[in-house]
Amino acid sequence: MELLVRYGTEEQKARWLIPLLQGKARSCFAMTEPQVASSDATNIESSIREEDGFYIISGHKWWITGILDPRCQLCVFMGKTDPHAPRHQQQSMFLVPMDTPGIKIIRPLTVYGLEDAPGGHGEVLFEQVRVPKENMVLGPGRGFEILLGQLGSGRIHHCMRLIGCSERVLALMKARAKSRVAFGKPLIEQGTVLADIALSRVEIEQTRLLVLKAAHVMDVAGNKVGALDIAMIKMVAPSMASRVIDRAIQVFGAAGLSSDHPLAQFFVGVRVLRLADQVHQRSVAKMELKHRS
Amino acid sequence: MELLVRYGTEEQKARWLIPLLQGKARSCFAMTEPQVASSDATNIESSIREEDGFYIISGHKWWITGILDPRCQLCVFMGKTDPHAPRHQQQSMFLVPMDTPGIKIIRPLTVYGLEDAPGGHGEVLFEQVRVPKENMVLGPGRGFEILLGQLGSGRIHHCMRLIGCSERVLALMKARAKSRVAFGKPLIEQGTVLADIALSRVEIEQTRLLVLKAAHVMDVAGNKVGALDIAMIKMVAPSMASRVIDRAIQVFGAAGLSSDHPLAQFFVGVRVLRLADQVHQRSVAKMELKHRS
Amino acid sequence: MELLVRYGTEEQKARWLIPLLQGKARSCFAMTEPQVASSDATNIESSIREEDGFYIISGHKWWITGILDPRCQLCVFMGKTDPHAPRHQQQSMFLVPMDTPGIKIIRPLTVYGLEDAPGGHGEVLFEQVRVPKENMVLGPGRGFEILLGQLGSGRIHHCMRLIGCSERVLALMKARAKSRVAFGKPLIEQGTVLADIALSRVEIEQTRLLVLKAAHVMDVAGNKVGALDIAMIKMVAPSMASRVIDRAIQVFGAAGLSSDHPLAQFFVGVRVLRLADQVHQRSVAKMELKHRS
Amino acid sequence: MELLVRYGTEEQKARWLIPLLQGKARSCFAMTEPQVASSDATNIESSIREEDGFYIISGHKWWITGILDPRCQLCVFMGKTDPHAPRHQQQSMFLVPMDTPGIKIIRPLTVYGLEDAPGGHGEVLFEQVRVPKENMVLGPGRGFEILLGQLGSGRIHHCMRLIGCSERVLALMKARAKSRVAFGKPLIEQGTVLADIALSRVEIEQTRLLVLKAAHVMDVAGNKVGALDIAMIKMVAPSMASRVIDRAIQVFGAAGLSSDHPLAQFFVGVRVLRLADQVHQRSVAKMELKHRS
Repeated sequence: MELLVRYGTEEQKARWLIPLLQGKARSCFAMTEPQVASSDATNIESSIREEDGFYIISGHKWWITGILDPRCQLCVFMGKTDPHAPRHQQQSMFLVPMDTPGIKIIRPLTVYGLEDAPGGHGEVLFEQVRVPKENMVLGPGRGFEILLGQLGSGRIHHCMRLIGCSERVLALMKARAKSRVAFGKPLIEQGTVLADIALSRVEIEQTRLLVLKAAHVMDVAGNKVGALDIAMIKMVAPSMASRVIDRAIQVFGAAGLSSDHPLAQFFVGVRVLRLADQVHQRSVAKMELKHRS
Repeated sequence: MELLVRYGTEEQKARWLIPLLQGKARSCFAMTEPQVASSDATNIESSIREEDGFYIISGHKWWITGILDPRCQLCVFMGKTDPHAPRHQQQSMFLVPMDTPGIKIIRPLTVYGLEDAPGGHGEVLFEQVRVPKENMVLGPGRGFEILLGQLGSGRIHHCMRLIGCSERVLALMKARAKSRVAFGKPLIEQGTVLADIALSRVEIEQTRLLVLKAAHVMDVAGNKVGALDIAMIKMVAPSMASRVIDRAIQVFGAAGLSSDHPLAQFFVGVRVLRLADQVHQRSVAKMELKHRS
Repeated sequence: MELLVRYGTEEQKARWLIPLLQGKARSCFAMTEPQVASSDATNIESSIREEDGFYIISGHKWWITGILDPRCQLCVFMGKTDPHAPRHQQQSMFLVPMDTPGIKIIRPLTVYGLEDAPGGHGEVLFEQVRVPKENMVLGPGRGFEILLGQLGSGRIHHCMRLIGCSERVLALMKARAKSRVAFGKPLIEQGTVLADIALSRVEIEQTRLLVLKAAHVMDVAGNKVGALDIAMIKMVAPSMASRVIDRAIQVFGAAGLSSDHPLAQFFVGVRVLRLADQVHQRSVAKMELKHRS
Repeated sequence: MELLVRYGTEEQKARWLIPLLQGKARSCFAMTEPQVASSDATNIESSIREEDGFYIISGHKWWITGILDPRCQLCVFMGKTDPHAPRHQQQSMFLVPMDTPGIKIIRPLTVYGLEDAPGGHGEVLFEQVRVPKENMVLGPGRGFEILLGQLGSGRIHHCMRLIGCSERVLALMKARAKSRVAFGKPLIEQGTVLADIALSRVEIEQTRLLVLKAAHVMDVAGNKVGALDIAMIKMVAPSMASRVIDRAIQVFGAAGLSSDHPLAQFFVGVRVLRLADQVHQRSVAKMELKHRS
């Protein structure tokens, strides 16, 4: 939606913004592909060719979050319009209405067996999907540019949710540790449980402050200046939340893994976000070396 | 089954051993309870009282692995026969045929949404379940003793499977890293992937050697002498396997979380075993302090 | 010095503040004792008794930072005036001029062989050291109270220095990594070195933000409200600095351990501060459980 | 010495073996250079040229262990005889009697301020040091070959010492934890100290088994087959010992950093060995990928 606000044409906005804002329509974003390492977005291979004033989109995508939701009416698609252009100008982005012929949903994907997030993640074939030229966003070869422009706020949003989730998990862990006894004393008096509580508090707090700083830098100085801070929060927040949840599961015992408590579902949601850790680590190092010498 | 061989009476063996050995019958073990921290087995609260030459078993158990399998005909049940006895003599063990009236399966339990292991884990109510006196194993108040006697070989078995699983995961990780490219070079040439492969090889190897040693000590000197080694393998093997699988998932990307590869299923099986880490860590420390000073 | 400003009598201030402010005199603080675990300050055992309007101080102290500096003229001494009082009211604090008879410096103490900090750390015997009654700070049994009141600002000071030190170390590490080649490419292009740089940047940044927050809370809401934040920074800053320095030493190779670069000296200074990690971890957990439920 | 036995000519053995075996003479090994990253041995730059039946050695070496010992009579020197040969055939090794003119000891080097090992490490200039042709070991361009042939047994020796050292440290840690009280109970009853003891026991045991395996493979199948095992022990043993010592220092408090206990000296010796961790990690990964697929 934010993508539309920032990069959409007047027509694109007129068509989509109202239903999205009303919550009647939902959107999804098709980027990741099964055949390539999508952590490096230049690897994306879906091909898009022009024909008679239309673009014909062909590709195999997966991990499209929300595409299985019946309210999903719009898919933002990223693929190669010009494989011979310079590396970061090969990709373009398109608005693809979900009722366009040729979109075949293959299956929902699970994360450790759980459907992650409402609507889950879908694997989808795009076979000769035909969209009018005006459905391109911003312009040919500008997919990467949009991607970079969008990342900031989306990432801050993700990280803020991870912090909220971690706070709730810590509260659950403390309550459980207070109510259970093992080896003659409450878990709450066991040194290793205390250590886990302390580490969790400290890690949540440090991540919160870093996210607040990144958001502040974005607000006052924009995406580019904030790039290092944003890469940093993406590097630390998912693994932080992952550790906090894992410690809580240890305190809960097997119950923590079942669907009786929200920990398993939280863990699954965080695990997906943690996949990109190494990519962000690499970005942080590169920026640190370039800009801070 | 091994429990029957070691502690069963002639009648108990005659009744159960053949079908179990033929694979026609399966057994399960009911110990963990939702209301208490079962990591400390003295917490178990199911009550068992004598009446007219029978034992009447009442209790709420869960995480009973295999009880949902249709072939499961025998449940080994642990509960309190004498709450006033010394702490380690309150519990007794019973052979409970699954067709005894009063066994109510409440539901299967999932681990992160996956059914773990064939037959999964079940939550079960035992309501006034009546078994003849001769179904007691070994004798009244000897549940703990059997538990300790049994732990050794079961634990070695678990840990050997964890090593086999980790080896397979490392092989999958190497194959995947060879076939994928990101940021202009194969994953296999990226320093952090190499580090993950090296760490995994080393951790698997060190755990394998420790398990082999524990098995050897058990064989030549028995359960008691081998207690420290057995606690050590239980302390390290699940977390080792957990780390190896997690690294492999990072290399696989989102595919590693789906059901297209066995990594998610492996992770789930290992996660359950890792719940007892702190308990074993504590045992290792206590034994180290007692016997090695 | 701050202790004097906050808790000193008019006479005490008149006598000591000017020379301390002018830098002509230095002070030191005698708390840690060889015979007890001083991480728990209630363990302190030096005895102080009243006699003819004087206090007679006897004790064996060590790790008194700065006492070997020839400019050191004042020792603040903590010991038991009343072993029968409630646990936190047994200790009192005294101003002991260094030229009082009975102060015997036994030796300087080294940290891994290095003298840490100008003036180093001293081991000192106090044998029947006689000070007038008016040298007591605040009042009998109030040593603990002063200690707690003082900790905040001292700790923030320490942590700020750790951050500055870590920043310098990261800069050294980056410069070294740029200038060295191994296995055919600069260290700067090796994945594990990049990972170390990224981790260091992130950890420094997160610690900096936490320290700034703690300082802010102290300023606006005081010591008590800030207690959790202050315990948190003490828990994380020394181990953070320790990791950053250790990574830098790996990049420097053996040179990093020698006296040709400041890394070894930094490491030593940080190591001493890290000794209290577990104590602060414990405090964080206790406060988290008490105040945030 | 082993180098002489394996690679020395009859004359070389006749000249050096007896005094070395008698302990009257000592030897040292000059490889590391200040100007290059010596973790990659192909970086070594000291030049050696032929002249009138002699070799003239020029180079700046440091971290030569034992060269400062007055009994040191023989230096084994590695440097480039042919900078234009293939990468692994540029280096040769020489026996250089310490009384040859041109060897200038610049200074001893410290590790965190401590002299590490008897005789410590020296920085030394070799200025036009002239040795007869027969002092070359094995042959021109075979320095690397000797180095690889030698590494196995030397590394196993190092790692065995690290295990012995760690065992002693764990014993010290346990004794200390038993004798000290903090926060109302002995350190030995605190969960985090128990965790540290358990981790240390397990890590020592796992490393011991890996070292024993590597030694066994070396004995029965030789250097080449054992290469992966040897790289593995070098990758894990120094960091294991480092962690064990660091935990013990936490239990000892400041005393552990002073020269009153052997922990500081141990730490320093281990730190030097840990410098090569990343190099060995890389080797393990490369071998794992090549030989185990």
